[in-house]
Amino acid sequence: MRRHITGFSNPRVKHWRSLRDKKHRRRAGEFLVEGLRLLEDARESGRLPRELIMAEGRDPHPLVVQLEQAVAAAGGTILTTTPDILAKVTGKSNAQSVLGVFEEWETDLARLKPADAPLWLAAQDLRDPGNLGTMLRTCDAVGAGGLILVGDCADPFSAEAVRASMGACFTVGLARANWEEFLGWTRAGGAQLVAASLRDAVPYRGAPYAAPCVILVGNESRGLPDVYEAECDLRVTMPMRGRADSLNAAVAGAVLAYEVLASLENATPAK
Amino acid sequence: MRRHITGFSNPRVKHWRSLRDKKHRRRAGEFLVEGLRLLEDARESGRLPRELIMAEGRDPHPLVVQLEQAVAAAGGTILTTTPDILAKVTGKSNAQSVLGVFEEWETDLARLKPADAPLWLAAQDLRDPGNLGTMLRTCDAVGAGGLILVGDCADPFSAEAVRASMGACFTVGLARANWEEFLGWTRAGGAQLVAASLRDAVPYRGAPYAAPCVILVGNESRGLPDVYEAECDLRVTMPMRGRADSLNAAVAGAVLAYEVLASLENATPAK
Repeated sequence: MRRHITGFSNPRVKHWRSLRDKKHRRRAGEFLVEGLRLLEDARESGRLPRELIMAEGRDPHPLVVQLEQAVAAAGGTILTTTPDILAKVTGKSNAQSVLGVFEEWETDLARLKPADAPLWLAAQDLRDPGNLGTMLRTCDAVGAGGLILVGDCADPFSAEAVRASMGACFTVGLARANWEEFLGWTRAGGAQLVAASLRDAVPYRGAPYAAPCVILVGNESRGLPDVYEAECDLRVTMPMRGRADSLNAAVAGAVLAYEVLASLENATPAK
Repeated sequence: MRRHITGFSNPRVKHWRSLRDKKHRRRAGEFLVEGLRLLEDARESGRLPRELIMAEGRDPHPLVVQLEQAVAAAGGTILTTTPDILAKVTGKSNAQSVLGVFEEWETDLARLKPADAPLWLAAQDLRDPGNLGTMLRTCDAVGAGGLILVGDCADPFSAEAVRASMGACFTVGLARANWEEFLGWTRAGGAQLVAASLRDAVPYRGAPYAAPCVILVGNESRGLPDVYEAECDLRVTMPMRGRADSLNAAVAGAVLAYEVLASLENATPAK
């Protein structure tokens, strides 16, 4: 099915535009993916958009043609529209010339099991979608089982999170849970819960990490609540040589993740 | 000196608003800092704004009062205005209630010497101001001598970079240079230039790092040009267990920086 849309007031245009808003995404169960590169990442990961929206009149890139065929074969809709409408939908004056509407997927924690991977990342009340996407990308790099969003985190289906993930959102396990569900999941799965902390902590290098290890990062401004920190099995501290006492949340998670990865691969015996 | 401004068309309002644009910042040699927390960071670092702009009619925070006194004592200007004008200046509907106009400082590489610190971060064509600010924050945390921006990088005086640095922009050494100047600086200073690389590289853990060590991170999309990589003294590779072959630039820089920090402190003999 192929359609051409030219009017700003077309209901599809209004719908797509509404998907920039978290509330509308959640209601529709859909989100937007901008640009050929991310759409290719999605396709390689076995995910195709329900709707593929292309700027009219452009010399089509061979990969766009392949994508179009794949979407059509899967029963999706192909639409062409004006660059102005694409710009309105994405909110960018220099919009990408191709856009996909994807179905959101399940983010139920019960689908994941700690034993499925030696290493996991988790974030509590992480508010910045860029940090969220960066953590997904780090999960991919360290071979983590996935990212668990605890509490009131940014929306992993926002355009900024998807973009910052550089396609990792399509491949890395993703779950959302409240604190009790998350804690129960780590305990039932025999996982070690590790937090970066300033109190009652051991140096992060050489700490007795044990698989499956879940690295928990707190909110960008407030860090982890004390009561959450106290529930962790291991509190580790990283050198802070300057005037500040914390790192960017995604950076802290990545430095710890690479340390745990090296530690587990060396099979360092627990101290 | 204290003034009250109520008109949107006031030339000061137009000037402040223009400072959201890189070209205008450079011409004026001034930049904006939003929010009490960052302004306090600046003051603690010995930097005060030329102009301090506050929303009228607010019950002043004791720290704002102190800041106001310090700015006045240093010959700066105190201005009050409406929340609407503050919102217009910052481009945010929910603007911070206090704003400072700072003089940009020198970013000449010659002011810094490799021997002044065991560790430095450098970024080539880094385009994302958030990444830039995050790298400044990492510099602070690892006690690096500073961040050197090589080539066509984002503006370190943009609001986003300043915000992401969490105040590290006021304390961490900062320089801008082209590739030849940068390379000459490392060579003349006897520094070891280290790049994350996929080719001809040794594992990043246990690599023969030597102080002063300069970690160089490439552009977010393209990485380092081959010819720049070839000029580096040491190319190191980090595990990539997923489908992607790279990390977020600020994350890669931080993981390497913490590795180098640990390596130098253990005084690991060069292999």
